[in-house]
Amino acid sequence: MNTAQTNQSQPHVVIVGGGFGGLYAAKALGKAPVKVTLIDKRNFHLFQPLLYQVATGSLSPADIASPLRVVLGKNKNTHVLLDRVVDLDPQTQKVYLQDHPELDYDILIIATGVSHHYFGNEHWQATAPGLKTVEDALEIRRRIFLAFEAAEKETDPEKRQAFLTFAIVGGGPTGVELAGAIAEIAHGSLKNEFRNIDTSETRILLLEGMDRLLPPYPAELSAKAQSSLEKLGVTVKTKALVTEIAEDVITVKYGDHSEQIRSNTILWAAGVKASRMGKALAERTGAELDRVGRVMVEPDLTIAGYPNIFVIGDLANFPHQGEKPLPGVAPVAIQEGEYVAKLISKRLKNQTMPPFRYFDVGNLAVIGQNSAVVNLGFIKLSGLLAWLIWVFAHIYYLIEFDNKLIVMVQWGWNYFTRGRGARLITDQKITPDGKQVETEANQYELLKN
Amino acid sequence: MNTAQTNQSQPHVVIVGGGFGGLYAAKALGKAPVKVTLIDKRNFHLFQPLLYQVATGSLSPADIASPLRVVLGKNKNTHVLLDRVVDLDPQTQKVYLQDHPELDYDILIIATGVSHHYFGNEHWQATAPGLKTVEDALEIRRRIFLAFEAAEKETDPEKRQAFLTFAIVGGGPTGVELAGAIAEIAHGSLKNEFRNIDTSETRILLLEGMDRLLPPYPAELSAKAQSSLEKLGVTVKTKALVTEIAEDVITVKYGDHSEQIRSNTILWAAGVKASRMGKALAERTGAELDRVGRVMVEPDLTIAGYPNIFVIGDLANFPHQGEKPLPGVAPVAIQEGEYVAKLISKRLKNQTMPPFRYFDVGNLAVIGQNSAVVNLGFIKLSGLLAWLIWVFAHIYYLIEFDNKLIVMVQWGWNYFTRGRGARLITDQKITPDGKQVETEANQYELLKN
Repeated sequence: MNTAQTNQSQPHVVIVGGGFGGLYAAKALGKAPVKVTLIDKRNFHLFQPLLYQVATGSLSPADIASPLRVVLGKNKNTHVLLDRVVDLDPQTQKVYLQDHPELDYDILIIATGVSHHYFGNEHWQATAPGLKTVEDALEIRRRIFLAFEAAEKETDPEKRQAFLTFAIVGGGPTGVELAGAIAEIAHGSLKNEFRNIDTSETRILLLEGMDRLLPPYPAELSAKAQSSLEKLGVTVKTKALVTEIAEDVITVKYGDHSEQIRSNTILWAAGVKASRMGKALAERTGAELDRVGRVMVEPDLTIAGYPNIFVIGDLANFPHQGEKPLPGVAPVAIQEGEYVAKLISKRLKNQTMPPFRYFDVGNLAVIGQNSAVVNLGFIKLSGLLAWLIWVFAHIYYLIEFDNKLIVMVQWGWNYFTRGRGARLITDQKITPDGKQVETEANQYELLKN
Repeated sequence: MNTAQTNQSQPHVVIVGGGFGGLYAAKALGKAPVKVTLIDKRNFHLFQPLLYQVATGSLSPADIASPLRVVLGKNKNTHVLLDRVVDLDPQTQKVYLQDHPELDYDILIIATGVSHHYFGNEHWQATAPGLKTVEDALEIRRRIFLAFEAAEKETDPEKRQAFLTFAIVGGGPTGVELAGAIAEIAHGSLKNEFRNIDTSETRILLLEGMDRLLPPYPAELSAKAQSSLEKLGVTVKTKALVTEIAEDVITVKYGDHSEQIRSNTILWAAGVKASRMGKALAERTGAELDRVGRVMVEPDLTIAGYPNIFVIGDLANFPHQGEKPLPGVAPVAIQEGEYVAKLISKRLKNQTMPPFRYFDVGNLAVIGQNSAVVNLGFIKLSGLLAWLIWVFAHIYYLIEFDNKLIVMVQWGWNYFTRGRGARLITDQKITPDGKQVETEANQYELLKN
C-alpha cells in the first residue's frame, strides 16, 4: 500500500516541511505523474499568520491548524510522514530520517522555514519566548493571563506594576499584532473582572530598534500603525535596542542612555534565523547561506549546481527581484510552492519555464479590532477598511483548508461580545513569581499540621 | 477595592472549587446580601461532560471552558481568587491558601470534586492516564493520534497491531464515550488517510469489571449500549478485571483465566477518589468519609456539627435519598449548589428550608454520532432520539455560559463532514515507542556526520 515505495516508474518528489511552501507544492503536485512524500515533524499545517490570536486568547490552536493527512488526503499519489529529516546526501539522492529508513528522492523540496533568533543571546529565550509554534502560543497565552492574576494577588505596588507591564521586543507585524491584542485585553476584555487591580493601568511597551514600526512598509503606514497603537494604549519606543533581559527586568538603550524597565512578561518578536536544514544543505551541497542562515537560491528556486533540489518559503533567500530579498511571508511561500510544482510538471514534459517572479499581493498588519494597515502597492489603507481587507484575506486563505467556518463564527462572536473565550491558563508549571505549582501527587504534602 | 475584605457588615461566603457545584452556588449568591469569594486553582470552569470530545479531537479545550471571571463578572459581590486551599481551621473559621494570606469565612462551601483512583496501583497512571483535566484530555488526544502515526511507521506486524489496539478500562459513561469516539476515529475520520495501515483493523477493547456496561443504568440500556458499541467496532468485555498494566501490555482476568493484551494506548476510566480536601475536612472537623474519601453530609449538605460548612458535588456522599448515594454527575452538583445558596439566603432572614432532595433529570451516555442511551426514569431511550436529547441537554447547559454558539457550529460541522479538526498532536515529549523527541535547541546535534 505504500505508494511512495511501490510505484517505481514515477519520479519521487520528497517535500520537507508542511508549512505554506511545502503544502502548496504538495497540493499542486496532487495530479502530476509523480510520487510525493511530504515529511513534517508535526501532524498538522499551522496557519501561522493567526498564531498571535491563539497567544492572546481569541482562537484555539485547532482553529488555525489543519491535519496534513486531511488536507492531502485526496491526493492518492501523496504519502504523509510524521518524522524529522536529520541529514541528506545529494550524491546518492537520499534523505535520512529520525524514525524511518532513509528515502531515495528524485526531486527534493526543502521548506523548513525559520525559528527565533536572539542575536547571540539565546539564554533570553526562557524569559522572552517567541511565537512560532502552537506550544509557543499557549505558553505566551499562559504568561499573559497569569500576569493579570499575579497582579491581582500582589500587594507590593512596585511588583504589581511589573506584573502589569508587558514588553514586546520587535516592531514588525508580529510585535504590532501582539501589542495591539494585549492592549485590547487590558482595556477591553478584562475590564471590571478584577477587584484589586485596575487593568486599564497596564503598560504595554513595543520596542523597535529601527526608527519606525513595520520597517518594510511605507513610512506613512508606519506612522498610522503607531498612532493607532497609541490610541489603544500602547507605548511605542523606536530606536530602542534591548541590551539585557533578566527574569523581571529589561534593559533598553536609546542612543546614548539606557533605561531599566521592570516587567514580568517580555515577549520576543525581533528576529528569525533559518532552520537547521539550511546548515545541512550548505554542508552537503556547498549552498551559500545569508547572514541569518537562509539558503541563496537560483532564479528557479534551485540550489546552484543541484537542479533537483529546491528551497522555498522562509528558508529561501531569493535575491533576483527588487532591491531586497523577498520577505518571509505566506504569499511568497505559496507562490514559490506552486511555481516549483509547475516547474516539475513542465520538466517531465521536457518543457521549460521562465524564472520565478513573486506577484506582490501586498502587505497586511492588524493592529486591533477595526484597525489594520494594508499596503497593496498601488494604494495604502489604514483603519476599518484595512481591517476588513485583512479579515477577508485571511478567511480566503483559510477556506482552502477546513477551518473557515469556525474561525468566522468565532470572530463574529468575539467581535460582538469583545470576548476572549480561549484565555485558558493551562499546563502551568511555574507561576510568574517563580513558585512551583504542585502536581496532584504531592499536593497533600502541602497540608499544614 | 477588595470587596471581600472591606465590606465588613455582610457575612463572607468562601467557596472552594469552580466546578458545577461551586459555580452554581456562586451564581445563585450573586444578588444575596453576602460577600462571596470563589477560590479555584484554575482560571476557568470546565464543562467536564464534554471533555472526552477534546480527548478525541472533536472540540478544543476553550470550547468547553469558561473563564470564571467572565461567568461571575457581573456579580459585584463576588471575588474570584486563583489559588489553592492548603488547609482550614473550623474553630477560628479560616482557610489557608498557597499564595494569599488566610481568609476568614462565615460560611464555607467545599466543592473540590474527585480525581482518578487506581485502587492502590497509582503507578499505572503514567501508562494509563485518566480523563479529568484539560491537560489529561490533550495527553489522551496526543496518544490516540500518535498511535496511528506510530502504526503507520511500524514494520513489525505484531508491534503494529499493538499500536492499533486501544484498551479502555471502565465501562461507565466516560469509558463508553471514549470507546465509541475512538471507534469512529478509526473507522470514519481516519479512513483513507494512511498508506501503510488499514485503520479499520483497529481493535478497541472496553473492559468492565461488572457484568454489564453502565452499571447504574437499567439493564436494557446497558444491553443497547453494548450492541451499539459493537456495531461501531468496539469489543466489549464484561467481568473483566485488570490485574496489571505495563508499558505496552495489559493483563485482564476473567473469572479463573487471564489474558495478556498488547496495547500501546491504555486509557483509565475506572474509578474516582475524593480530592484531598475531604481528608483535610475529616482531620479538622471529624467528618466521616466513605470508602473513596467522599465526605458524608447531613440532609442539608452540612457536615455534622458544623452548620456553616457545606460539602457539595462529587466530593459529597449524600445518603439520604434512595438506596445508594447520589451519583457524581453534573445535575446533582448543580442542584446542590443552588440548594446551598438558597439555604444561606433563607438563614439570613431567619427562615428554614426542608432537606435537600435531588430532582432526577435522568442519565445520559453518548455512544457515537446518532447514538446514545437516555434514562429519564419514566422512559428509556436509545439510538438517534436519545442522541438528539443528549445534544440538546448539553447545549442547554452550555448556554448558561458563553460557549454555546461555537460548540453548536463545531458539532454541526463535524456532523456533516465527519471531521475531527482538533486532532493536533501537540506538546509531544516522547513518542509511544518511548523515544525522546528533540527540542529545537538540540535538534542540530542530530545531524549525522
